This record gives sequence, C-alpha cells and structure tokens, in this order.
Amino acid sequence: MTRYQHLASLLAERIEQGLYQSGERLPSVRMLSGEHGVSISTVQQAYHLLEERQLIQPQPRSGYFVAPRKATPPVPALTRPVQRPVEITQWESVLELLSSRGSGAVMQLGSGIPDISRSTIKPLWREMVRLGHLQDPRLLNYDSLYGVSMLREQIARLAVDSGCRFNADDVVITTGCHEALSISIRAVCQYGDIVAVESPAFHGTMQTLRGLGIRVIEIPTDSVSGISLEALELAFEQWPIKAVIVVPNCNNPLGFIMPDARKRALISLAQRFDIAIIEDDVYGELAFDYPRPVTLKSLDGDGRVLLCSSFSKTLAPGLRVGWVVPGRYFDRVLHTKYINTGSTAVQPQMAAAEFVRQGHYMPHLRRMRQQYQRNLSVMTCWVRQYFPANICVSRPQGGFLMWVELPENFDAVRLNRRLQEHGVQIAAGSLFSASGKYRNCLRINYALPLDTHSEQAIRLLGQATEQALNDGG
Amino acid sequence: MTRYQHLASLLAERIEQGLYQSGERLPSVRMLSGEHGVSISTVQQAYHLLEERQLIQPQPRSGYFVAPRKATPPVPALTRPVQRPVEITQWESVLELLSSRGSGAVMQLGSGIPDISRSTIKPLWREMVRLGHLQDPRLLNYDSLYGVSMLREQIARLAVDSGCRFNADDVVITTGCHEALSISIRAVCQYGDIVAVESPAFHGTMQTLRGLGIRVIEIPTDSVSGISLEALELAFEQWPIKAVIVVPNCNNPLGFIMPDARKRALISLAQRFDIAIIEDDVYGELAFDYPRPVTLKSLDGDGRVLLCSSFSKTLAPGLRVGWVVPGRYFDRVLHTKYINTGSTAVQPQMAAAEFVRQGHYMPHLRRMRQQYQRNLSVMTCWVRQYFPANICVSRPQGGFLMWVELPENFDAVRLNRRLQEHGVQIAAGSLFSASGKYRNCLRINYALPLDTHSEQAIRLLGQATEQALNDGG
Repeated sequence: MTRYQHLASLLAERIEQGLYQSGERLPSVRMLSGEHGVSISTVQQAYHLLEERQLIQPQPRSGYFVAPRKATPPVPALTRPVQRPVEITQWESVLELLSSRGSGAVMQLGSGIPDISRSTIKPLWREMVRLGHLQDPRLLNYDSLYGVSMLREQIARLAVDSGCRFNADDVVITTGCHEALSISIRAVCQYGDIVAVESPAFHGTMQTLRGLGIRVIEIPTDSVSGISLEALELAFEQWPIKAVIVVPNCNNPLGFIMPDARKRALISLAQRFDIAIIEDDVYGELAFDYPRPVTLKSLDGDGRVLLCSSFSKTLAPGLRVGWVVPGRYFDRVLHTKYINTGSTAVQPQMAAAEFVRQGHYMPHLRRMRQQYQRNLSVMTCWVRQYFPANICVSRPQGGFLMWVELPENFDAVRLNRRLQEHGVQIAAGSLFSASGKYRNCLRINYALPLDTHSEQAIRLLGQATEQALNDGG
Repeated sequence: MTRYQHLASLLAERIEQGLYQSGERLPSVRMLSGEHGVSISTVQQAYHLLEERQLIQPQPRSGYFVAPRKATPPVPALTRPVQRPVEITQWESVLELLSSRGSGAVMQLGSGIPDISRSTIKPLWREMVRLGHLQDPRLLNYDSLYGVSMLREQIARLAVDSGCRFNADDVVITTGCHEALSISIRAVCQYGDIVAVESPAFHGTMQTLRGLGIRVIEIPTDSVSGISLEALELAFEQWPIKAVIVVPNCNNPLGFIMPDARKRALISLAQRFDIAIIEDDVYGELAFDYPRPVTLKSLDGDGRVLLCSSFSKTLAPGLRVGWVVPGRYFDRVLHTKYINTGSTAVQPQMAAAEFVRQGHYMPHLRRMRQQYQRNLSVMTCWVRQYFPANICVSRPQGGFLMWVELPENFDAVRLNRRLQEHGVQIAAGSLFSASGKYRNCLRINYALPLDTHSEQAIRLLGQATEQALNDGG
C-alpha cells in the first residue's frame, strides 16, 4: 500500500466510524500534511481517491466535505431453511468454485483464502530452509499416528487463550481442518444418519456430509447471535439427530460470534438429548476483539465436543496442518484418521510448530486481525457505495468473509457466470444450503490488500447486481 | 557398513547363490586380500563373521570351508482363508504395531518403512532448502484439488515404464497411498458392500474397509503367482462383490509378482462380472528385475482399474505424497478427495516433483533395488540359519518384506509381546487376515542396512520362535 492509499484508508475508516460526520468539513490539505508528516501532494492524492469512492465531495474554495451517507444496510434476518432432513447436492457448483483456485487471472472474491503475503509470515520460510539443512530423518519417515508431538504441545498451549484445558495427548493432527471435520463426522455418524447444521453452512462441510450419505437438517440461524437454539431443540425432538455441526466463532459465512450464554445453552441442549457437537473453530483466532472468544470445547463438561481447527485461515492453507480434539470420541477418531490418510506430512507440521514455538504466531495473528478489520470497514463502505440500496449485509466480528443478501428474485449463480468473463469470482449463497436456499446471497472475501483493482471489482459486482435486479434477477 | 562387513556379505551372497558349494574350500586369506584390495586383517574379520553366522567352518591348517547347508525352506502353499464375507477386527493389534513407530529403541522388523538414510536421497533435502529460499506463495496457498500439475506430469511420465499411457489430467494427488486407497474404495463401494481381497492382505487396507463398514471375502493366494483366479471367479459368482483389491507387483506381504498372463486373466474376469479393480502399486518400482513389471492399469481396456501408489516406499513416507489414476471413476474420486482432506500439502509435492524432474529418482531407485536385493539374500540366509527347520519362507521378487510361515500351533501375537521386552518388533500374520488366519506367520522388513545388531535381532527372533514351538506355540 502506498503512502496516499494508507492515508485514504485511514480517513475512510474515520468516516465509517462517524468521527467525521456526514456534511462535516474535513481538515485542510496543509493541516493533514503537517499532522501525518506527508507531502501536500500525498494528501491531495488521498483526497482524490476518497472523492472517487464518493466518500467525500469537494466544494470550490472551501475544501472537502464528507459526502451524504447512504443508510447503513441492515443485517440479514434470521434464516428460514426447510425444516426437514434433506440430501445435499451442489457439487458441480462447489467444483467450479474450487477449480478457479489455480487461475491467477481471476479475482477470487468467493474464496476462503487468507492473505499469505504479509511479512509476519517470513519466519515460516526461514524455518523451511532450516529444516532442509537439518536433514533430520524424522521428516522423511512415517509420523506417529497422532502427529508431531511438539506441534500438539503448541496447539494445547494456544488453546488456553480460548478457555480450553487439554494436553498434547488429547490432540490428533490432521491434513487440514477438512480432514478433522471429515473424520469427526465419521466418528459419530454412519451412512443414512441425520446431522443438524447452521443455515447457511460452510459448503465443504456440506459436501463431506453428502459424500458420507448423511442427510442434514438446516437450522435457522441469526446473523448476529448464531444458530437458533429454539429451532434446534425442536429438531432434536422431532428427528433422530446424531450430531450438530457449528462454527460458533467468526462464523463462515455469517461472521457472528455466538454469545457465551448461548454457547452454554447449546452445550446443555446437546447434553439433554445426548448429541455430539462438532465445533469448527478455524476462524476463531481471527476475532477482532482481544482476548479471543471461548470455544464450545472450553465449556464442555462431558467430552461431547469434537473441536476441529487448522492453520489454514491464520497461517497458510498449503501447509494442510489441522487438528481435532475429539474428547470421548478419541479412539474412533484415531482409527478414522489412520484409514483416511495413515498419517500427516511431517515437514509442514514441523515448520508450523517451530513458527509457533519461536513466538512468531501471536504477532502474525495480531497483524492479520488488524488488516482484516481495516479491510472490513473499507469493504463495508464499498458495498454500501456500489450495491443497490435494498440489501442486507452481515457484521463480521472476525475473519475475512462478508455475507450480502439481495432481494429474493436475485440469482447469484447466474451473476457468477456473467462475472467470470470479467475475471471476478464470487461464492453464490446457494452453495451454503442443502435445500437450495440463499440463491439471492453472496459471500465476499476481504482478506487481500484492498487496492483500486479490488475496488473496481466491487464496483463491477455492484453494477452487475443492480443490472441483474433490473433484468428481473 | 564397514569394509569387512561388506566383504562378508559379498561372500555370503556367493554361498547363497551356490557359487561356493557346501563343503567347498574358500579362497585363502591372502588370495582374497589381493583380489579385493583389502588388508589381511579385513579378510580375517570377514571370515570370522561368516564363521559366527555358521556359514563357513575353519579346518586347522587347511583354511575355511562352506558349512553344510540346511535345506532351503519351501515357499508357503496356496492360502486357504474362510470362503465367505467377514467383518474385520484387529484394530488394537494394528494400533500396537503403529504406536511403536516413534520409539527409537525398538528394532522395527514389523514395519513397512523403507531405508531413508541413503545418500541418493540428498537432493530431496537440497530441494527443500531451495523451496524455502524461493518463497513462492503457491507453496502456502490452497493447492488445486487435483494436485500440483508438475508432479502429475512426472507421475504420468514415470508410468510409461509400467506400460501405462495416461496424462497428467488423469491423476489425482493424495495424502499418501493410504488416502488413494481410502478414496478409491469409497468411490466404488458403500457401507455394507462386499469386497474381495488377496489373503493375506495389507492390514492398512483391511482397516480402511473395516472403518467404512465393508465386509471382505478373502481369496486364496499363491505366494508365487498371486490371487487364485479360480477362487475369485467362484466368489464373483456367489457374492455381490463390488470390487477386488490387489497388490499384483511385489505383493505386500507375500512378495510375488503376478505373471502377465494372470494379470490379463484378472482383467478379463473383472470385465466379465463388471467389477472394479483397485490396484495398489506402492512397491511396484522396487521389483528386482529391470524393466519393472507392468501394472494391471496398463492392461485395462475400459477404465475399471483404479491405480493407487505413492512415494512412501520408494522415496520417503513422511512426504505423504501419493496418487490415484481412477479411470472411469474420476469424478467420484475427485469428490471424495475433496471431502477427505480438501487438498494435499504443497511443499512435499513440489519437493518430490523436482526430485523426479531433475533426474534423481531413477538412480535412487536403482540403488534401493540393489540394496534390498542384497539384504534379501542375507536375510534369507539368517532365517534359514536361526529359525526352526519346519518353516516356509516367501521368495520376494521385489520390495523389502518377507513372509515366514511357522507350524500351525505357533502364535506370532504372543511371540511379539514377548519380543518387545527385548526391543524387537515383528508384524504378526494375523493382522493380514479378517478371519483370524495367519497367526502362525510373520512379516519381516529387510529394508534397513543389515549389521550385527540386526543379525542379533533375527537370531533372537529365531530362538524365541524355536522356544515358543517347544512350549506348544
């Protein structure tokens, strides 16, 4: 980010937070130049950028004023999915989304990819070099079935911040959180079983359930407080549900953090009906507020929570280093881990373990949280700016994913196809439902550094959305 | 290996091959010293070692003579497993075997671990250093679902040696062959199905079938020519079998290479009954004869063979780089890959791909094949030497695994427990059967450099076996 872009995003953030009110006059160019120790022309460039973004307006001979704000879009209401178990489809659309991973030309607004370009990740590369020089034969040999013990120790240590008390022997390392979820589901469910999920829910989890021949019942979910416990209780009463899968912290795709009281109530409910809880905490460390929110696992009195996580969203997805803390299901998880992949690649585990042990992880997390929070305010601003007025937008409390709900007649799948010609890709909301809901929603990734290129993409997205709505969806 | 050990193993090999016959006088110390360019004392040490191994006998003032040979043990007969589908158990014993992986103190004669200490593996370490320096962000990002394309190209290129013609786009990279097998099985079978396997069969595959709720029918298998096609045909007629899983090249645990004619007959049979073939070729590149044997995949006319393999036995298991070439089942395999682990760790894929691309793989394979073949003749010699007379021993045609069959009343599981106090671990034959067969058999790994330490372990094993038999098993 150049100097003037940095200044512009700072000012945009202040406007967003209401520190400069709509219609208020902004500081003079000279004043800002003095305050920030930058040149006059840098301030002018920053103001031009904000003017382009329609955040401020110049008035001849009077300077710049904050532009009249469009009203802040409301948050999406409680979702209303179909209230019976359904089979999952949608694989073709997920495959389409995944297949665009490789192509550098596409602006991947639909992905779940974090920003891996930051300098705080440098020590990870250094560790890879060191491991290569070390020539430790353990890196080439079969790992223990449980995973590298130093890594498991670090994971147990990190978990203290989320309120958890477990030790290295309670952890099983996996090939990413994907494997953690896959083996957790298989440890508690069989072919033909029913599982409850949030609605919308992560498409990867849905596809896993599909592949295992498991039906889901989608539970109404609030974009601020999470899964509806009332609806969940009803579902528990009506159907022979084996497990509930939730992302309670920095939810994918809605971004909420479940309040602690509701987390406790969810645990009680699961105890009452004797149901396993699979907790996906993969975005939990990216909560904007410090200290990070507690996990369900930390509130789990009788070992019914299988905590799944990874370094894929916080450090690097290419490492494929995840883990599961399976509580009472430990033995079954271990067997399933064995039959799934035998063991996990050793070098990425060692690199990640050393990165954490040497104290690089916390500063890295801090930096990522700050970046994502800053990006969120810019993205919120852009979405409000460039999208039609009658939308709802989530208020992520962490992570780097935003959920946008458009009017009912809108078709995100069709939009996605049209956008791909322009090198822009989004995640259509329908991927996040088994019963074909959320075709009128999109999930947008705001992890990557936001520049004029990304602004253009959002503008294009907004225009295409507007046009699609005018064309009747 | 020291100079005198090397000389001793060379002489042992000649004796084994009958170049020096039983009772024949060996060359004088002075003559050997001249022939091999080593000191007199080196030759004396070598002769002492062979004397200790009871391969040669000194006669005062006449030199050394080849000791009278014990008769070569016969090969195991065609196996006779139970001829109906059974459920698999044995997980506790497999877990015990796997859990000893980490402990350095144990001599792991029961493992499937190759020798990763050879100098021909050095370029792999160099590649790891180079990749660390390179800081290519692709290493940290999600891989394509199919795997790194350069690696898939190299795999397609290598496959030509096994008679195969496929290209990079036909390959899906997996987390080791374990995942390749696991997703192949899931692509062609469902919970409750029946699968035919060789008997004995690799315990990892058996555990995978168990975890998926699949029953197996074990097919009689010959230790020289492989699975009985007659018995397989009968099973196909009698039971609704979905797939047959075979290790036709350098079989684990029996070591045979199926003759080409029988491979072709197996393909025809599967075509006739429309049954999928899952081919595990993980030891295929380690066949002692060059060129390597052809795969079933190379004879597959209608895409029904799912070829599974990895670098775990040829290069390094800790990389967890495997692959599947799924033929007509490509789409289902790809979906199952996605739900299993999302994608595969990138750095190990890149390191392996570069190792192959830069031409290090073939010389490495050549060296490993030579080492394993040399080790096999020493191990055969030791087993004949130290084991009771009434045994059968396999004649591996590649790889590094030997199968020893003891009298019916012998209990390898009990023996294993007793041996562990002495730091020696074997794989009991019962792990390789779902119906509790082969408790009287053992599988021995001869990959690691054979020294006096390993000889002591085999001697101990032989003595313990003898004693167990005298105690009634």
